[in-house]
Amino acid sequence: MTSKLLAHYLITAEASQIEARAQAIAVEQSVEMPISAIRERRVLAEIVGQVHAIKDRGNGQFEVTIALDTDTTGFESGQLLNMLFGNTSIHQDVSLAAITVPEALTAAFTGPRHGPAGLRTRVGAKARALTCAALKPQGLDPESLANIALQLARGGLDYIKDDHGLADQRYSPFAVRVRAVAAAIRTARSQTGRATRYLPSLSGNLDQLRQQVTIARDHGLDTLLIAPMVVGLPSFEALVRENADMAFVAHPAMAGAARIEPAALLGTLMRLIGADAVIFPNQGGRFGYTAQQCRDIAQTARAPMGGLKPSLPVPAGGMTLNLIPEILRFYGANAMLLIGGDLLAAGDHMSEAARAFQTAVETHDYGAGCS
Amino acid sequence: MTSKLLAHYLITAEASQIEARAQAIAVEQSVEMPISAIRERRVLAEIVGQVHAIKDRGNGQFEVTIALDTDTTGFESGQLLNMLFGNTSIHQDVSLAAITVPEALTAAFTGPRHGPAGLRTRVGAKARALTCAALKPQGLDPESLANIALQLARGGLDYIKDDHGLADQRYSPFAVRVRAVAAAIRTARSQTGRATRYLPSLSGNLDQLRQQVTIARDHGLDTLLIAPMVVGLPSFEALVRENADMAFVAHPAMAGAARIEPAALLGTLMRLIGADAVIFPNQGGRFGYTAQQCRDIAQTARAPMGGLKPSLPVPAGGMTLNLIPEILRFYGANAMLLIGGDLLAAGDHMSEAARAFQTAVETHDYGAGCS
Repeated sequence: MTSKLLAHYLITAEASQIEARAQAIAVEQSVEMPISAIRERRVLAEIVGQVHAIKDRGNGQFEVTIALDTDTTGFESGQLLNMLFGNTSIHQDVSLAAITVPEALTAAFTGPRHGPAGLRTRVGAKARALTCAALKPQGLDPESLANIALQLARGGLDYIKDDHGLADQRYSPFAVRVRAVAAAIRTARSQTGRATRYLPSLSGNLDQLRQQVTIARDHGLDTLLIAPMVVGLPSFEALVRENADMAFVAHPAMAGAARIEPAALLGTLMRLIGADAVIFPNQGGRFGYTAQQCRDIAQTARAPMGGLKPSLPVPAGGMTLNLIPEILRFYGANAMLLIGGDLLAAGDHMSEAARAFQTAVETHDYGAGCS
Repeated sequence: MTSKLLAHYLITAEASQIEARAQAIAVEQSVEMPISAIRERRVLAEIVGQVHAIKDRGNGQFEVTIALDTDTTGFESGQLLNMLFGNTSIHQDVSLAAITVPEALTAAFTGPRHGPAGLRTRVGAKARALTCAALKPQGLDPESLANIALQLARGGLDYIKDDHGLADQRYSPFAVRVRAVAAAIRTARSQTGRATRYLPSLSGNLDQLRQQVTIARDHGLDTLLIAPMVVGLPSFEALVRENADMAFVAHPAMAGAARIEPAALLGTLMRLIGADAVIFPNQGGRFGYTAQQCRDIAQTARAPMGGLKPSLPVPAGGMTLNLIPEILRFYGANAMLLIGGDLLAAGDHMSEAARAFQTAVETHDYGAGCS
C-alpha cells in the first residue's frame, strides 16, 4: 500500500513506445517541464510523478499507473481532478481508467455523509432496493410539475427527483417550483403514509447553490440532486462540507463516458467527495454503457475505500417497468432504481404505474442477488 | 438567423438511422422523455429540441444541428453547458462540433471584458503578437518560484503565468506565492522598463477564488489564469461578472479533446462567458491537435459573434524558441505565444532565453500573416 495517489490510465501505444509514453504522462501530470531542468532534489524525489506499473492489456492497450504526491492536490477536489487528468484529458490516446485513493485523501474528503443506509432510513426501507422517479418535462410551470409529483408520489415511491434539466428558468423558477412540488409531496405523503422524498435539482454558482439548499431545507427537504461535472467539483465539495444534514445524489450530466471510465469518475471520485448516491445510465437503455461498466460502477461505489461509506448505485436511463426483476437480479438490494419517462408515459395512470414500480421493488426476492 | 441556440453535433451513424438518431438527441437534450406523453402545446412548440439540419459529412459521419430554446439555459453557464451536451456527453458516438450562439445569449453573457486589445494595452504592445512564459515546477517554494519569475521577467516578456498545477498547496500557498512573485516581477519591471504582467493561477471553490482575486488585486495584478473546466463554468462566470477590472486567461485543463471540439469549447463557449484569452495546445507539440483544429480555435475566438470582443488565441504546449517564426506565420499578430519548459530548460541563461523569445516576437514581420 503506497501513500501516493495512483492514477491508472489506459493508453493506446506501440509496445516499444509505452515506457517513454508512461514517463511523459508522469511528467505531464505533475511538473509539466523537462526533468533535466529541475534542480531541487525534493521536487525530483517527491513531486515528479512516478511510473508505478505498466501492464500490457493486449490489442495495443496498456494500463499505466502513475504515482502522484497527495500534496500536489492541495486536498481540494478541483485540483485533485486537475492532477488526475487535467492536461492528459487532451491526449486522445489516453483515458483515465481507475483511481486508487490513499488514506491521506479519504481522510481529507471523508466521502458520503449518509450513504445507502442514510437513504434507506429516510424512507423507512429495509433490505430492498429503493425507487426513484423524475419530474419532467422542463418547460412546464411549477403547478404542472407539482401535479405530476402528486400523481407519482401517490404511487408510494421512495424518491422523486427533478429532471436534471430543471434549473432556475423563467418558466419554472427554483424557489417557486420547490415550494409547489414539496407541498404536493406532503399532500401525497399524508394520503399514502409513505415517507416519499423530493430531490430538487441544484444549479448555478456557489452562491446560487447555497440559496437553493436553504430553500430546500426551509421546505423540509433533506436530499438533493446535483450534477457535479456541470456545477464544478469545488462547488459540490463545498456543499457537501457545509450541509451535513443533506444527502446528495450525483447526476452524470457532462460526465462523458469516453475519456474517464465511469467507475473511476462516478464510483470513486464522486464518492470520495461525498455523493451518497450516483446516477448512471443502465446497460440496454438509451446510452452505451456495457453490463461490465455498470457492474464496475456499482462495485466501485460499494467497495471498501479507506473507511468511507459506500455510494448507492442508481441505474437509470430508458428503463421500463417490465425490466425491474432483471435489473434487481443484476444489482441486488443495494441500489436505487430510477425510472423516468416510462412512468410519465402512463399519463392519467401515472399513480398506478408508480405503485406497480414500488410494489415490484418491494416484493422482489433479493435472496441471492443481494450484495 | 434563428433566435434559437444551435448545437451542432458530429454523429457516427448509418444513413438509414440518422434522422431517428437526430430526433432522439433533440429530445435527450431538451425534455428527455417520450414526446407522446407531453400534452402542453407550448412545451411541444418551444421547449422540445428541434432537428434544424442534417448534413452528410461522408465516411458515416453526419453533422446534426439541434435548435434549443434559450430559456432552457436559464442564462447561466452551467445550465448552458448542460443543455448543449449534458446527457449527450455520455453517448460515445456523438461529439459537440460547434455552437451557434444567438443574440439573447451574447447579450446575457457579454463575453470578454478586455479581449486582445485590453491584453495588448496592459503591456504597451501594438500590432504584434504577445509573449507568455510559465512558472514551474510545482513543488518549489514561493521564493524559488519568485526567483524564476525574476529571471524570466528580466528578459522583458509580456506575461508570466503560474503553471496551472500551482494551486494552494502546502509547499507554496497561494497568498505567499503571489506576494513573492508579484514582488519579483516589480523588481524586474523597474530594471527593464517593461510592463510585464504576472498571472496567478486560481483554484478552488467560489469563496476561495474570490479570496485569490482579492489577493491578486492587492498586489497590483490585473490579469488572471483560470481553468474553467476544473473550477466549473458557473464559478468562472461569477468571477468574470464580479471583476470587470480583471482580464481572464482560460487554461484548457480537463477540456478533453475527444468529445467537444476545442473550437466550440474554447473559441465559442469560453469566449461567451468571458475569457479574454484562451490557451490551447499548439499543433506539433506534446498534444494531438491538428493544424486545422488550431486554425479553427483561433478563427472562432476572433470571428464576429454578436458584438462580443474577441478572445486572444494562446497556442502553447511543448513550443520551442526556434519555432517562433513558423508559429507567428501561422497565427499572425493576433495571438499570444506561450513557451514554458523550453525557457526553464535554459537554466542559468533563462533571462537570455526569455529576451530572445521577446525579441523574436517583437521583430517578426507580421505583414501578410496579420489577421
